[in-house]
Amino acid sequence: MNLVVKKFGGTSVGTLDRIENVANRIIEDLKRGETPIVVVSAMSGETNRLITLAEKLDPTYRGPAYDMLIASGEQVSVALLAIALQKKGIQAQPLLAYQLGIQTDKIYSKARIQKIDGAKLIQYCRDGFVPIVAGFQGVDEDDNITTLGRGGSDTTAVALAASINARDCEIYTDVAAVCTGDPRLIPNAKELYKVSYEEMMEMAGLGSKVLHIRCVEIAAKFGIRIHLRSTFEEREGTWIVPEGEIMENPLVTAVTHDANTFVFTLHPTPEGTSFLAELFQKLAAKNVIVDIITQSQTEKGQRLAFSITKEDVPLARQVLKESLGSSVQVEIMEDMAKISVVGLGMRNHPGVAATFFKTLADGNIPVLLVTTSEIKISAVISNNHLTLAAQKMAQAFSLVNI
Amino acid sequence: MNLVVKKFGGTSVGTLDRIENVANRIIEDLKRGETPIVVVSAMSGETNRLITLAEKLDPTYRGPAYDMLIASGEQVSVALLAIALQKKGIQAQPLLAYQLGIQTDKIYSKARIQKIDGAKLIQYCRDGFVPIVAGFQGVDEDDNITTLGRGGSDTTAVALAASINARDCEIYTDVAAVCTGDPRLIPNAKELYKVSYEEMMEMAGLGSKVLHIRCVEIAAKFGIRIHLRSTFEEREGTWIVPEGEIMENPLVTAVTHDANTFVFTLHPTPEGTSFLAELFQKLAAKNVIVDIITQSQTEKGQRLAFSITKEDVPLARQVLKESLGSSVQVEIMEDMAKISVVGLGMRNHPGVAATFFKTLADGNIPVLLVTTSEIKISAVISNNHLTLAAQKMAQAFSLVNI
Repeated sequence: MNLVVKKFGGTSVGTLDRIENVANRIIEDLKRGETPIVVVSAMSGETNRLITLAEKLDPTYRGPAYDMLIASGEQVSVALLAIALQKKGIQAQPLLAYQLGIQTDKIYSKARIQKIDGAKLIQYCRDGFVPIVAGFQGVDEDDNITTLGRGGSDTTAVALAASINARDCEIYTDVAAVCTGDPRLIPNAKELYKVSYEEMMEMAGLGSKVLHIRCVEIAAKFGIRIHLRSTFEEREGTWIVPEGEIMENPLVTAVTHDANTFVFTLHPTPEGTSFLAELFQKLAAKNVIVDIITQSQTEKGQRLAFSITKEDVPLARQVLKESLGSSVQVEIMEDMAKISVVGLGMRNHPGVAATFFKTLADGNIPVLLVTTSEIKISAVISNNHLTLAAQKMAQAFSLVNI
Repeated sequence: MNLVVKKFGGTSVGTLDRIENVANRIIEDLKRGETPIVVVSAMSGETNRLITLAEKLDPTYRGPAYDMLIASGEQVSVALLAIALQKKGIQAQPLLAYQLGIQTDKIYSKARIQKIDGAKLIQYCRDGFVPIVAGFQGVDEDDNITTLGRGGSDTTAVALAASINARDCEIYTDVAAVCTGDPRLIPNAKELYKVSYEEMMEMAGLGSKVLHIRCVEIAAKFGIRIHLRSTFEEREGTWIVPEGEIMENPLVTAVTHDANTFVFTLHPTPEGTSFLAELFQKLAAKNVIVDIITQSQTEKGQRLAFSITKEDVPLARQVLKESLGSSVQVEIMEDMAKISVVGLGMRNHPGVAATFFKTLADGNIPVLLVTTSEIKISAVISNNHLTLAAQKMAQAFSLVNI
């Protein structure tokens, strides 16, 4: 059997017509001799509708009931695609996480897959069924439904591929390829044909919404080649592959951004080494993901700044309220954005940081926080400056079509 | 523990406000020392919305994907009620069929519960959680979701009560009690305080939408007293109990109707005994429930008539098309209604049938099909005559308030 996992995103199954289109596409694959295993997201808009219901009852609750609620969207699209395939004469088997033993930890809304019963999946294929699997969901050891976080269906797809030793995983979406930058900000961004796992992980972590970071991590761990492509076009898109498959690395592969950044500033913070450790431990315990952290000395004492994404703001506020004395002033800067450049080529070329900061300076764009790694540089700037910064950065690193 | 199963129907959880109202009601029960186990239906309108999606893709498909689809409505309301309770400080455990091992057969859309893991449910109560269970759904031996048919959440509730040896099961709904007739047809119908299982089963089978027949069957089998009452009022409603608890039976307890009746007439049907057996076997194989059957001899040969409900019409047409030769004329009468009177008292009073037919005759109402049992008489009439027939019947048997 030529097993290929194919994941269709929310826009790809956003209407009944589009679901029938996906069904037709699967039938074409069957005719070509592929044995498809299909993963689907919720119909676009559905997950947001469910989240709104939950938040009207309680804006802060996270737990098994929340995950059970938002996982129902995938259940609907799985069932509808299975019905569409049956109608066209194809035997389809709709499958939820509990049926495949997609086991996760108990970190609701951000759960991580621990194991999958790949043998069961293969058996359905052997029996002549096309398995249609709900993305985004798992079950914990107590059989509660868990969810994998936004974009989690990509993770489901790659994890399924790993569980059955498939080599390729196709992610069908509404964009034709990964680009050197978000085309909404950089209209003449280039399409990338191949990107390494490492770069893609950085890009996902830095705000590129194209692929979920955990999905790329699993692909890298098991050597699964991800083919990201459009549901609405036949042509190839972008391959996310091991570094060794890429012959030549440009200095910078892409510019990415995250417009959802909030910066918390605490001043003056208590002296001593234990404060920082305790604070970040408490934030971690609430599953708040802290991104950039900087600390500086001022006349009035230590000043701490850190950035988080918008969705974690209510939880972070709560932690700060519980753990800080009244002497510490907390300032929250909304409407911030993180802009980053990513590229394996940076490893061997020292001039990237200089170009990065010169580009921001030339645009008179103030920089609030900075962080770097071997293959990326990030800066937090005001959201107002984001488009300008992204376009200048793309030009400076030759990421645009001329 | 004073375990009481409480089922809330679709209108009871139809909006977020109503879900909070149910949560408050459960908190009152906890304060009174009850240990509630809650079963909920889908928010009103939701199941129909899902069915419409399925039918747009394929109007005839029934199978695991269909049941998975329509079971998602209960998943949403279970999760929302659990979130509402958590917000009010109550530990709630949302539970789907697979988590409780609500095992059914494989007759999708009309599945029957075979067993439930009651011990698990009791353990959640012991651990201080209020279990919130999805009604209407089960799982078959292959772990596929099944559904129990319209009103199936009532069945879930009573089956849960049986699985934990509870004595009472409360069914909260939007009517305050079972009445001697449908108040929309008979505005001055009386409320019934106690009804026997046997009468209630007949009434459910004859079109009373108040309780699902299977639910009353299970209650009768395990001696569970059902208390049907309003979600929106505090007072008691109707108790459905063993016959022995009812001191005196009126001649007729209630008049019921089913406006969803279709009559198929086949003429002339093939001679010989095998035809009928084969036809009804084929209909049964498709899970078409045939209600009244009559056969008569005419000059041109045998004439067969039978009634089914509207939802089974497409399947019945298909069976007839496959099994009849072109010589048999099939006539389908739409817009028919079945009117019935039910009462344990009929057993010992022979005059009921006479009054029944005299009442129809006095109203000039033609009768198409007739069937009787020990405690009921039914006639199929035109839908146009239904209101008149129901009102006259209620008067004839003293079922109205004066």
